[in-house]
This record gives sequence, C-alpha cells and structure tokens, in this order.
Amino acid sequence: MQIEPIAYIYTDFPEKFGIPRQAGRVPELFGKIIFEPKFRKPEALRGITEFSHLWLIFDFSESHRKIWSPTVRPPRLGGNQRVGVFASRSPFRPNPIGLSCVKLEAVQNQTELLVSGIDLLNHTPILDIKPYLPYTDSQTKAFGSYGEMHKNDKLFVHFPENLLVQIPEQKQKALLACLADDPRPSYQHDPNRIYYLQYANFELQFQVSGKNLYVIDLQKNPDCNDTNQ
Amino acid sequence: MQIEPIAYIYTDFPEKFGIPRQAGRVPELFGKIIFEPKFRKPEALRGITEFSHLWLIFDFSESHRKIWSPTVRPPRLGGNQRVGVFASRSPFRPNPIGLSCVKLEAVQNQTELLVSGIDLLNHTPILDIKPYLPYTDSQTKAFGSYGEMHKNDKLFVHFPENLLVQIPEQKQKALLACLADDPRPSYQHDPNRIYYLQYANFELQFQVSGKNLYVIDLQKNPDCNDTNQ
Repeated sequence: MQIEPIAYIYTDFPEKFGIPRQAGRVPELFGKIIFEPKFRKPEALRGITEFSHLWLIFDFSESHRKIWSPTVRPPRLGGNQRVGVFASRSPFRPNPIGLSCVKLEAVQNQTELLVSGIDLLNHTPILDIKPYLPYTDSQTKAFGSYGEMHKNDKLFVHFPENLLVQIPEQKQKALLACLADDPRPSYQHDPNRIYYLQYANFELQFQVSGKNLYVIDLQKNPDCNDTNQ
Repeated sequence: MQIEPIAYIYTDFPEKFGIPRQAGRVPELFGKIIFEPKFRKPEALRGITEFSHLWLIFDFSESHRKIWSPTVRPPRLGGNQRVGVFASRSPFRPNPIGLSCVKLEAVQNQTELLVSGIDLLNHTPILDIKPYLPYTDSQTKAFGSYGEMHKNDKLFVHFPENLLVQIPEQKQKALLACLADDPRPSYQHDPNRIYYLQYANFELQFQVSGKNLYVIDLQKNPDCNDTNQ
C-alpha cells in the first residue's frame, strides 16, 4: 500500500528530545498544519470547526528502520524492561505510523489548521486527519498499564529571569510545562549531566537534581529559520 | 511511504452493508486478528492484556479510489449534505486509512487477538495495533457534531423465532443489535424495499416500516467458507 503525506505540521521541536511523551500533556504547545498543494482545498475542511479535537495519523519519519523488533523498551518503564511493540506506542513499529489526539484551535487562511497539545517533531508528515468522535473514541472505562505511571510527576523548574525573557512571551509557558514534565529518559539520574534541548530556535542547557530542574544557559540558534511558519 | 499489512481481521461481515457505523456500537460483535507470518511473534504482544482497549489502524481496502474528493456526504446527515473529508470518518480519503477503538477480549494461541465492538469488513488488512491510553486518548471534554446525531435511535426488531434459531446462538445477540442500530442509509425510507444483509454465512432479508424492522427471510450461503477462522 502506497501512501503519501497530505500535510506537514510545523512545531517548535527540531529534535526529538523535549517533545512531550504523549499528545495533550502540554496543552500550551501549538502546531500549524499546512497541506500539500494538491490537498490544499478549503472545502476539504468544511465543518471541521464543529469538532473540538482531531486525530492526526502521521509518519514517524525519523524512526524508519529496515528491521523491526518485536519488543521495545518504553522510557516510562525505566528503559530496561521490554514489552511487545503492539503493547506500546513506540515509534519503532513494523509500519511507522503514529496517532495523536490534538485540540483544534482554529482554521487559518482557509486551509491551515492551528492545533494544540501537540507531541510532534517539526515537519512531521501527516497522513490523515479525522474528527475526534467522543461517543466512539472516548472510552471512559478503559484502563491502561504503564502509560499511567508517573503522569503526575512534575519537576520544579528554576529558569533565571534574564534567560527566560529572551524566549518570545507566547512560547514561554509551553516551554516551562515541557521542562516540568521531565524530558529526561527515565533511567538517567546524574545530577551533573548537562542536557541540551532545542526549542523554538533556542538551545537550552539544563541540569536536574532530585525534583529540581535548573536552566543554566540559553543560546539563540543564529543559522536556523523560524520553524513556525 | 510504503506500508504493508501486519495482520488481517476476520469478522462476520463479508460485505459493507450492515456493519455498525462506528466501533463500539455493537459490543457483542467479535473479530479475530491473525498476524501475517513474519509478524506472528508471541513477544510482540507481551504485556498487551494489561490494556482493556486497542486502536486498530487499518486499510479501507474496499474504498481505494484513484481520484480523491475534498467533500463527502455522511450517511448520518441524510446523504445529501456535503462536509469536508477531514471533518468526516468516511472511508473515501486521500490516504484510505481507518481508525477503530476495540475492546481486547483475549490473546489466543499466543499470537491471535480476539477483540469486540468491531466495525470492520471480514479480512480487512490491519496496518498497526496500539494500546488505548486513557489519559491521552479519552478526551472527556471533546465535542463533535453530526457524529452524535441519532446515536440512540433504535429500531424494534421482529425476527421470527423459526428463522432466528438457524443462526448460531452465540451470534444472535450481535445480529439483533446490528439490526436495531438501523443499517439502512439514512435517506432510504421505502417500507416496501427489501434489504439484503450478509452475516456469518447467512443472507438475511428485511423490511423497515417506521420504527419496526421485519426480518422476512434467511438463507444459509452454501458455498461460503466460515469467515470466523
């Protein structure tokens, strides 16, 4: 079966590190979906604003592998326990197809979708967009296992004011929420380690000690185009 | 992007007519997922029974078209009103990829998945299977539009006992629920029209008058293999 991108999403994450582990964890994170020319038709979106949420089906374009592994090690289990790939949302799957529920904020310029609660890399190819239908998609009695773990563990973020003000104001809250959500792999706990996170054309450096995250430096990437078209 | 089926699902529906309009509408409807030989590995399912529900991402294999239409006419709007394809769950989409949430009933023979609440044609190619994660997938505040309409409209089903007993007992309840859910296209209201529905190797004939559905004949398909492997 041959499929092609219908659109690309533009987000503040040029790299995987720092992206929330699931959609909706950071409601303040926005993305803009721009359709490919052949699918850029206002009528293809007719009625879409009557839905509050959308499904994005996308290509895990940075996770293509020639060989598939039947098991994966979810970060949430500490990275050292293996579960079946079909019991995980890992990007490394036989068909590298991803699924995210996002909030529809607005239709812009008749053909662009502004969405929030994203968990996607900048320029991720979108394969399909569907309305979220609460009566069939919201399984209020469903239960999951390790996906639930740590979901309320938050770090206390220390972000020096002189550094924070360099980030555009409308992007500060989302960044703080991503940091509080603890972007580290679960198995890394070295307080001396310096982590580098790319966000909205900035490179951030931070360290984590216990429940505290300390931002120690911030640099603007001079040679980078603005990813938020 | 090239993708391939990882599995096929076996259901009681050899044709589209009669299939519930969304997953979960008829909880009694079962399907069995059998993996393709290269993906048939017990370890690929390790931990899956800790989840109550699964996402099936599948190929709308009977709905491939060379030309895409930016609008579709959802049956729930009477079939005469057009909405954008991305504001619908229509199978006729630029990439014919479907999404259904089903309940995981059991893992059988180490590599087969028995699921319920299906809305899929027999032998639908499955592209991916993911666990349903309530904290990100269940959007309790989401709202939709026409998807909600008529969801509690039920027909009163008159199924003569001498016909009903011909259906295997464990398949009767699901069939009655499918009929009560009104399989007709919304725009058809001719009480003289006879509808033919294929289910579990039977062909059923029925008519609908007002809120009453009358089963008028039932024939076993002699030349049909059992689709429930």
